This record gives sequence, structure tokens and C-alpha cells, in this order.
Amino acid sequence: MASKGVKKKGITVSKNDDFSGWYSELVQKAELADLRYNIKGFVCYMPWAVMSIKKMFATYEKKLEAYGHLPLIMPSLIPESNFHLEAKHVEGFTPEVFWVTEAGDGKKKFEERLALRPTSETALYKMYNLWIQSYNDLPFKRYQSGSVWRYETKMTRPFFRGREFHWIEAHNVFATLAEAEAQIIEDMKITHEMIGDEFAIPIIFFERPKWDMFPGAVRTHAADALTSAGKVIQLPSTHLLGTNFSVPFDVSFIDKDGEKKYGYITCYGPAISRIYGAMIAIHGDDTGLVLPFELAPLQVVIVPILFDNTKEMVISECKKIEKSLSGKYTVKVDARDDKIPGEKFSEWEMKGVPVRIEIGPKDVEKGQAVIVTRHDGKKEFVKAGNIEKRVLEISKTFTRQLKDAQAQNFEKRLIDCETLSELEMAVSDNNMVRCGFCSMELEGEACANKIKDTTGAEVRGKKFDKEDKTFSKCVVCGKPAKVTVYVAKSY
Amino acid sequence: MASKGVKKKGITVSKNDDFSGWYSELVQKAELADLRYNIKGFVCYMPWAVMSIKKMFATYEKKLEAYGHLPLIMPSLIPESNFHLEAKHVEGFTPEVFWVTEAGDGKKKFEERLALRPTSETALYKMYNLWIQSYNDLPFKRYQSGSVWRYETKMTRPFFRGREFHWIEAHNVFATLAEAEAQIIEDMKITHEMIGDEFAIPIIFFERPKWDMFPGAVRTHAADALTSAGKVIQLPSTHLLGTNFSVPFDVSFIDKDGEKKYGYITCYGPAISRIYGAMIAIHGDDTGLVLPFELAPLQVVIVPILFDNTKEMVISECKKIEKSLSGKYTVKVDARDDKIPGEKFSEWEMKGVPVRIEIGPKDVEKGQAVIVTRHDGKKEFVKAGNIEKRVLEISKTFTRQLKDAQAQNFEKRLIDCETLSELEMAVSDNNMVRCGFCSMELEGEACANKIKDTTGAEVRGKKFDKEDKTFSKCVVCGKPAKVTVYVAKSY
Repeated sequence: MASKGVKKKGITVSKNDDFSGWYSELVQKAELADLRYNIKGFVCYMPWAVMSIKKMFATYEKKLEAYGHLPLIMPSLIPESNFHLEAKHVEGFTPEVFWVTEAGDGKKKFEERLALRPTSETALYKMYNLWIQSYNDLPFKRYQSGSVWRYETKMTRPFFRGREFHWIEAHNVFATLAEAEAQIIEDMKITHEMIGDEFAIPIIFFERPKWDMFPGAVRTHAADALTSAGKVIQLPSTHLLGTNFSVPFDVSFIDKDGEKKYGYITCYGPAISRIYGAMIAIHGDDTGLVLPFELAPLQVVIVPILFDNTKEMVISECKKIEKSLSGKYTVKVDARDDKIPGEKFSEWEMKGVPVRIEIGPKDVEKGQAVIVTRHDGKKEFVKAGNIEKRVLEISKTFTRQLKDAQAQNFEKRLIDCETLSELEMAVSDNNMVRCGFCSMELEGEACANKIKDTTGAEVRGKKFDKEDKTFSKCVVCGKPAKVTVYVAKSY
Repeated sequence: MASKGVKKKGITVSKNDDFSGWYSELVQKAELADLRYNIKGFVCYMPWAVMSIKKMFATYEKKLEAYGHLPLIMPSLIPESNFHLEAKHVEGFTPEVFWVTEAGDGKKKFEERLALRPTSETALYKMYNLWIQSYNDLPFKRYQSGSVWRYETKMTRPFFRGREFHWIEAHNVFATLAEAEAQIIEDMKITHEMIGDEFAIPIIFFERPKWDMFPGAVRTHAADALTSAGKVIQLPSTHLLGTNFSVPFDVSFIDKDGEKKYGYITCYGPAISRIYGAMIAIHGDDTGLVLPFELAPLQVVIVPILFDNTKEMVISECKKIEKSLSGKYTVKVDARDDKIPGEKFSEWEMKGVPVRIEIGPKDVEKGQAVIVTRHDGKKEFVKAGNIEKRVLEISKTFTRQLKDAQAQNFEKRLIDCETLSELEMAVSDNNMVRCGFCSMELEGEACANKIKDTTGAEVRGKKFDKEDKTFSKCVVCGKPAKVTVYVAKSY
């Protein structure tokens, strides 16, 4: 395994003191990714991570299908000329594209460069032009799961940001702007159901300022999560593309009135590998990984406390419990001989197994077991006959408790500020700031740059949900505040 | 939808008369793939195909995990230098590689070309070198699902052969040759359970002749399926790589005796998209697609026979049946107003829906329904109270009946031949031939080429399972036959 030759021991730095160091160690020691692949910015995802990531894809796809999206598989390569059809898109993405220029022994050079897709608008909308002809074809809702490649110049971090990542992208076409707007709201609802409820990460949806939009979008909404270090992680974003792409790609339809009209397009891109990284970052602690109950590759580990003369009896009791839980949960008895119980506890805590059951000879005698829950470290004695019931309770509350704990962090770290110096202090104290701002239009960018230069933090935008707090003045220029925005450092 | 503007009607050529024309029409009319994407050899997979392909991936992955494989996700790009470590591999694959040579606006040229993986040996074994250190790490069984890219010069055909396809590859390392050999047998068992039982395609496993092996393999076993046109489709292959890769990549371990030893590697590659193509080709008929029951995106369609004065009553009866079947099957009532029942029947037959239930006002009166099964076209009256039971029976036998029908075709088309002229006639009559052959070693290649030149057919190899038929002479050169081989044209 990846860790051979590496001493198996706990994480040596605290998440609060050094987030980056903590994250790197956790990724290595829980065996989630291997960074030694010999292309810069590309990493290998290890089984323990992939088992959760596969569940995340399956759950998300099921949800999108329940909301009426059908799956597609598109080619990974896109001709360069497709990109050139939408000016802002080509400008935004060209710096990040990996280009295929030749094949075979090198004699075959392509006349046109082929992009490894950084996102699929320009592949899909070429086909949407063919697939959408009439109002009868609308609404048209499709998604695909796959890899995308971006030649990132920012620092990469496994799962968070890499030159190849794994995502789902949904691209929808509507006859009217109103329907497209409704889809944006549906996308946000899906995001709350998935990121919030399933993956236990509290988020706020922001409308991004005009200077921070998806290249080619009319409006960008993005979900931000907040770490205990007070920095935000951008999670899924949903973009109103309006007719910005449908005009150049001619995604049009003959309406009921016989007229040709352009479709209104929205796109939504949950980056599953990045969400997995956010789960590590948000839920993990100094002992290791913490995962939502449903996503853990192993949900219950049973550790026997072994002594020579009672070994058989204890293992037999463990197997009995394993049998009673299997089918409902992924469960196993860790009866390895070459490790003492303490080592096993640490190992499974590092791996984020939600429930540990410990059983020693005295427990067998007393007809009980010890149950330890990973997220809160609580330890309890449970009567043998009640183990199934107790594990069921835990399975039902674990993920919600994770989310509630993080929601408290989010609330605690949200500070209202009236002045730039207040903002500076709040940000340096690892908080997110709420404040008044002059404008989300391009005229506000100078003030946003001032914040960025002074504090390193960014204007994330205005809250999509109703904002009840108003401020009189822009935190930077002092002009009347048109909008309440949120400011934070980001990864 | 894809077919707008195209007249919705049946397939115009018969599978028996013109397989290629039939296949193309079916793919288009059942809306499985769109070939109009603007890069040659790359196609869009449409929802109806993707829904089945997703199920196939999930079923196959579950099976591999049940047999002890763990999932990985590796980068899609491989440095050119990795390829150069195994001479035959680089020779075999270089002509097929798409190369990434630059990124961004073109100023960033890579010092070393990066291959879009055509297969992952040379990515994985670089890492296996790091991950495998001791005998404790073995056996080491991993798989990944993903895309691969090959610059095919042969004619492409959607799903069958494209420049991007979607597969699973498993790569395993063992301490001994015997364990590696046992893995090859396990791979063949898995193949029979999946391709045979789940996807209803009868196969024979062949050991390929020495001139037709995976580049870098010691031995190649591949499953061949047979179409009604008597041509074979190569389905999953499993390769004994021995130490051919483990030496150059240094996939080695310290054994119990303290000695450094090289691992024995096997690899196995079920190409899911190709298997899907084979299902279309093997099970499809002149009416359209036929799918195994479990893989159909829609398993039961209920078509009401509507007249103005009984419409409500009939639809209400249909909904009742839908309700009783949903949860167990994917089922829907097709109550569209703009199509007559006959059109609906044709449409769902084209799409390969296994069970159709028809209900008209007279059926409601008599308390019955008509059930039609897609694979055999059989029509039966079923009492209303027995519909659930009858659909359950069909669901349990449908896929096996598909397989049995194909097994009969396979048996019927297998002809023993003693001479080249017999062989020629049998092949031109759309059969697979069994015959004596001089040698599967390289010395036999001349005779294989003679067959190929004369008939267009290939020596597929010797059967892996016990062969009970022997021949005295090689069908070509007349020398004593060392082996019984199988000969067929292939796609």
C-alpha cells in the first residue's frame, strides 16, 4: 500500500495552526491520494477516496435524473474552432487548455488543435444546434459525468484543485428566460440537498460580482463553504448563460407561433472531486478523516480486545455482531494479530470510519459492547441486544450532526463590519465578513481590488436568499451601499 | 431530440442482408449515438444508450469488487518516457496515441509529449513500483473505469470501435506465476458471469496465437462473440504480462525470505462501450433494439388504446397497473395524444423495451390485458389480477432466453473443416470454422496469413476450455496439426 515505508502515525500538525500542512498529511496518512505521479498537477486517487467519490457520483446523478436530466456521454476533445464561437469563453478558457496537436508516431499533425475539454459548452452546444429544432424539444435537460482538464497556474492541492478533475456538468435549454431563471433556482435547491444534506457541508449561495463570472455567463451563482480557518471553498456554481451561447451556436427552435427563437441556456457544474476535498477540509480533524455516514467506505468496524485464553470467545461474539449488521451497513471485524487495539483505533479514526465497536472478554461476560462515534469521539456502553438499534440511530443522526456542527462554525465566523479596518481585523481573525458595498457591477471592482490588496480577501457576492442586513455605506469608498456583500479569503 | 427532422420509421434494411447498414440505421433510429460531432471518429452517446451503459458499469464494478479488486482513479495523461520502458508496448501503441504537446495560448510547449492514455499499464506500473514493497502487499488487485483514446485507422463504428471509448481496466500483481495464472482463470469466470449471464452474449474464450497478442503480453486470452452474420466480435481480453512489465518498471517486492523478487502481472480490460455495441449487434433485430431485461432504460411500457368515450376509464386502469409495477421495474404509461397505438408499439420496439402491456376498453371490461414480449414477439392475454405475477416471470426468464437463442446461433454456425476450400466455403456462408492447424507459435503465422488472404478470416486461437475435437492435419499446409483452432471473420 501507499504508506509502506512511511511511518504509520497520527497527523503531526494541527488543522488550526497549519491548514495546508494538516491537509497534506491527512491525504497521505489516510491514503486518499498519491502525489508522486510523474506529471505536475496530476495525482492518483487511491481506493479509500475513490470508494466515497463513486458513491457521491451515483447519489448526485440519481438526484439530477429525479429532477428530469438525462445522461449523455460527449467526446473529451473539442476542436479549437468551437471555442472561438463565444468571445469571452475563448478568452477565459484558452490559457487553461491542454492541446492535442498530433497522433501516432508524430507524422500525423492535426490541422486544427483539439482541446482536452476544460468544460463542455462548446462541444455540447454544437450538437444542441442539431438536437433542438422545435418548442416540443424544450425544456431540454442533459448532464454528463466525466473528467475535465485545466492547465492551472494556481497552486494545486489534491481533490481541491488539480489539472484533471472529475465532475458532473448539466446543460439545459429553455424557451423562455423565466424558465431558465427557475432552473437556476432548482440547481441551487439540488445543491442544498446534496452538498448540505448528503455531504453535510453548510453553504451560502452567492450571486457573484460582474468581474467574477463564468466566461460567457450573464449571471453566476456559486455556493461557498467555510472552513474553520475562515476561508471559503467554492463549491457548485450555476450559470445563467442566457442567449450568449445560443446565438453564436445557433441553439434555436421554431416556436408555436412559427417564429425562430433562441433558447435560454443554463449550466451547472458540481465538481465531485473538489466536493470530496471540501469534505476532508471541513469535517476532518487532527485525528484524521471524518465522513458523512453514507459515504464512508467502511461504516462500522468491530475491534476485538484479544487475550490468548479468551480470543476465540471474543472473536465469535464480534462475528455475531458483524453478521447482525451486515447487509444494512458495510461492516468488518478487524482481528489482525500484528496490531494492538490502540493502533487499530488510530488507523480507523484516520480513515474516518463513523462507528467503532470494541469488545473485550469482560464485555462478553457482561453482555455489552463499547460504541465510539467518530465525529464527536463519544464513548458509550451498549447492551448486546441493543447494538443494532443503537447503530441504526447513529446512522440516522450522524450526518445531520456533522452538518449542524459546521453550521455553528459558519455562523460564529460571520462578522458584520462597517469599515475597512474592521474588515481587515475580522479577516485576519479567520472570519467571513458581511458589509455594505458600492456596486456588484464592474464599477465596484476597484473597491474589491482594494479589499483584496489590503487583506487578501475577495468579495464573494451578494447572498441569493433574502438578505435581512443592510448597511448604509460601502466598506471601502464610503459611497452609499447599494448591496450587502460577503468577503472572505478563498482557497 | 436527435431524430427531429428525420422521419420516424422502421429500419429499411435487413440485418441479414446488410449488417452494416442495419446497424447504422438502428443506432440512429433508436437514438443511441449521434455521429455528427465535428471530430472524425468521435461520437456522442445519447441518453438511451448511456442509461444502459451506466448500469453495465455499475454491475461490472460491483462484480470486480466482489472478487477483491479495489477502485482507483489514475490521470488520463501519461508521459511519453513511461511508454518507452517496455519495447513491445511502445511499438504496439505508439501509432495509436493522441499526443498533448502544449497548453494555454500556445506559449507553453511541454518538453516531453503527454499521451492521452490508450491503456494504463505504463501509468499504473510506475506507481505500483511505489505502492508494492513487500509480500504483505500482495496480491494487489486494482481497477479503474474511464475513457481511453486510440487513433484508430480501421473503420470506426459507434460503440464497437471509436477513437474514444469507455472501459474498465483491472491490473493485478502476484508473488507467483501460479497465482497470476489463477487470476486469468478468475477473469474468464467473471467474463462468463457478466457477458454471458448478465448481457446474454454467448462467448468462447480463446488463447490468441502468438502473432495476435496484446503488446507486451506473455499470453492473451480473449472472448469472442459471434453475430448472425458469422463474424466475431472480440469482447474482454485478459493478459498474462508475467514479468515483462514488472522488470522495466521495477514492480518488485521483498519476499518472506528477504529476497527482492519481481511481481507477476495480469491485466483485464472489459470495454463497456464495445460490449454495448455487441449487445446491439447480437440481440437487435429488424424491428430495432433488444436488450437484456435488467439493462433496459424502460422495462415495461403500458399503451392504452384510446377512444373518446372510454379514455378516462382506460387510462385509469393503466395507471393502476403502472402503480402496481413501479418500484420493482421502470415502467410508464404512454398516453400521448398525438400518436396512434401502432406508432407507439413501433417506437418502443425500436427502443428495445422488453415488455409492452396493451389495454383497450374491451380489455377493461373483460378484466384483462395484452402482454407482448420484445425478444420473441409473443402476445398473450393475461387476467388483470395476474399481471404482476406474469411480469415477474418474464423478468426472470427474459435475459436467459435471449442468451439461449444466441447460443443456438453460435452452435449452428460452428463448422468443422478439413481443407482450405471447405473453410473458404464455410466462411463465405457466414460461419465460424473449427479446424486443425500447424502451430500457434510464430511459425504458424504464414498459414494464418494464407487463410486471411484467401477468405478474409482470421485464426482466433485455440479454445481455453477443454477441446474435444482433434484434426490430423493443418487446414492450410497439411503438416500434422498440433492444435485445433477457430477461424472467423471479425469486425
